[in-house]
Amino acid sequence: VFDMRVLVVGVGLIGASLALALKRSVPNLHITGMDADAAHLEQARARGAVDVALGVTAADFAATAGGAFDVIVLATPVKQIPVSLGAIVGMLSDTTLVIDVGSTKQDVMRAAAETLASKADQFVPCHPIAGRERHGPMAADADLFAGKNVVLCAEKSQSTFAARAAALWEKTGAKVIHMGAADHDAVFAAVSHLPHLLAFALVDELAARPNAKTLFQHAASGFRDFTRVASSSPTMWRDIALNNRDAVLAELDAYTARVSLLRDAIARSDSAAVAALMQRAQSAREQWLLGQLDQFNNEVA
Amino acid sequence: VFDMRVLVVGVGLIGASLALALKRSVPNLHITGMDADAAHLEQARARGAVDVALGVTAADFAATAGGAFDVIVLATPVKQIPVSLGAIVGMLSDTTLVIDVGSTKQDVMRAAAETLASKADQFVPCHPIAGRERHGPMAADADLFAGKNVVLCAEKSQSTFAARAAALWEKTGAKVIHMGAADHDAVFAAVSHLPHLLAFALVDELAARPNAKTLFQHAASGFRDFTRVASSSPTMWRDIALNNRDAVLAELDAYTARVSLLRDAIARSDSAAVAALMQRAQSAREQWLLGQLDQFNNEVA
Repeated sequence: VFDMRVLVVGVGLIGASLALALKRSVPNLHITGMDADAAHLEQARARGAVDVALGVTAADFAATAGGAFDVIVLATPVKQIPVSLGAIVGMLSDTTLVIDVGSTKQDVMRAAAETLASKADQFVPCHPIAGRERHGPMAADADLFAGKNVVLCAEKSQSTFAARAAALWEKTGAKVIHMGAADHDAVFAAVSHLPHLLAFALVDELAARPNAKTLFQHAASGFRDFTRVASSSPTMWRDIALNNRDAVLAELDAYTARVSLLRDAIARSDSAAVAALMQRAQSAREQWLLGQLDQFNNEVA
Repeated sequence: VFDMRVLVVGVGLIGASLALALKRSVPNLHITGMDADAAHLEQARARGAVDVALGVTAADFAATAGGAFDVIVLATPVKQIPVSLGAIVGMLSDTTLVIDVGSTKQDVMRAAAETLASKADQFVPCHPIAGRERHGPMAADADLFAGKNVVLCAEKSQSTFAARAAALWEKTGAKVIHMGAADHDAVFAAVSHLPHLLAFALVDELAARPNAKTLFQHAASGFRDFTRVASSSPTMWRDIALNNRDAVLAELDAYTARVSLLRDAIARSDSAAVAALMQRAQSAREQWLLGQLDQFNNEVA
């Protein structure tokens, strides 16, 4: 008899890391891992992240029938979350907490409302702000979430389920932050999705040039850091861009307008305007690095 | 009696680092440092980068009269190079080598042609691809150039002077690369100046928002790396943007067009086009990191 039974659907970097973190801090825990990728499943089991490994055949689903999971974690790629919700809806008791770990939140809330129907309020959308360039269970780390933020968008969730989700994340060492899903998607479109898209675009632009080899020969540490996020998973970021389309388009347009201001100032050799923009940016970044965030505007409380 | 006498005009990070590197590898070397900043001069002397420290008064210039420097290094901010050229033109013998260390090269070549006149072919424009976020002689490091590239744009220089400049840089552990000044300015507009401008623009855009505090609270490691170059000196980068204006504007326009392609693909939910761009970018960056540059086009030999 276990005190807590968890099903982790998708045992990649995030799913397996969460499993390892919970294994370390929750006594008498049983974790079932489910994944379409047999190699990932075997790696997750070998690393001790899961006690039972299931594929996605009818027989595997049958094996979960009497599961009575306390918690179901959806850690598949964002695009597969609607399918995953359909797969687990039959496993839910009235007390089963469902969380996800995706980078966009309004889309999964819509999918949960549709698929989980009357049980949608047992779903707590979560976004751990933690990632690595490496993927898969071999890259998993029980400390991945320690000291990191996890955003919970629990406005449609029962408060007891939201509290259970928050407690679960706190066991991993993460700091829980509550935010509305629309705010979440707008904020991360700006500080995360936008830089990713801009970095992908820069590398693609230069790689397409006739003199690409010469360009990359002379690219140095500034270019390396600027484009680091362009080494992220194209599949994952395609899905984020499309799932958070409206916010992402608004960010691209606002950014392009700002670049256009800078371009025009350079074109007319407006030294003061160019310097002022750079000075504002440099100061803002220093304040951010120093944690002096009270220097900034904040209409959104 | 010294084997080599060097004047370093501007004892900031680059000037003082070059002085320290030469001190370590050139026996019987005498270095005079000249700077308008008395604190920097004193620091450069305290660190052993210079043997004699001069300001920029008439008396200081008089002290250089009999100098007969073998090498004059112009390491002031790029904007002051024309003034520095005017200040040193009277110190040149027929064998004095003059180099600079600026990030743009066509502009200093024009200034040298004008100011040094018949001695302009003793000037070898140089660009060490090395920098730090910290500035000034206290950040100087004899190893700053070790293993780094230094681009020489010597198409208007006497070949013996170009060879001496190359030998000087090789003493610092740097790798010398020859390139035409126009090619240099175009290449670095793409791989260096453009990312700097884009990073400054992103930080400024977000800092100007009403919800800036919330945005910066949620900015994480991807944002940190993408914007690292926005912590660079606004004065230096203003000058680079304006001095390399035409190439920088061309880069901003090409980049904006690429971002526009990505934006349109997202707007029409063209999953294949979004994924294809990201996949190309990710692959190109991996090839670059692995040093597999033969994968890229290269019309420019």
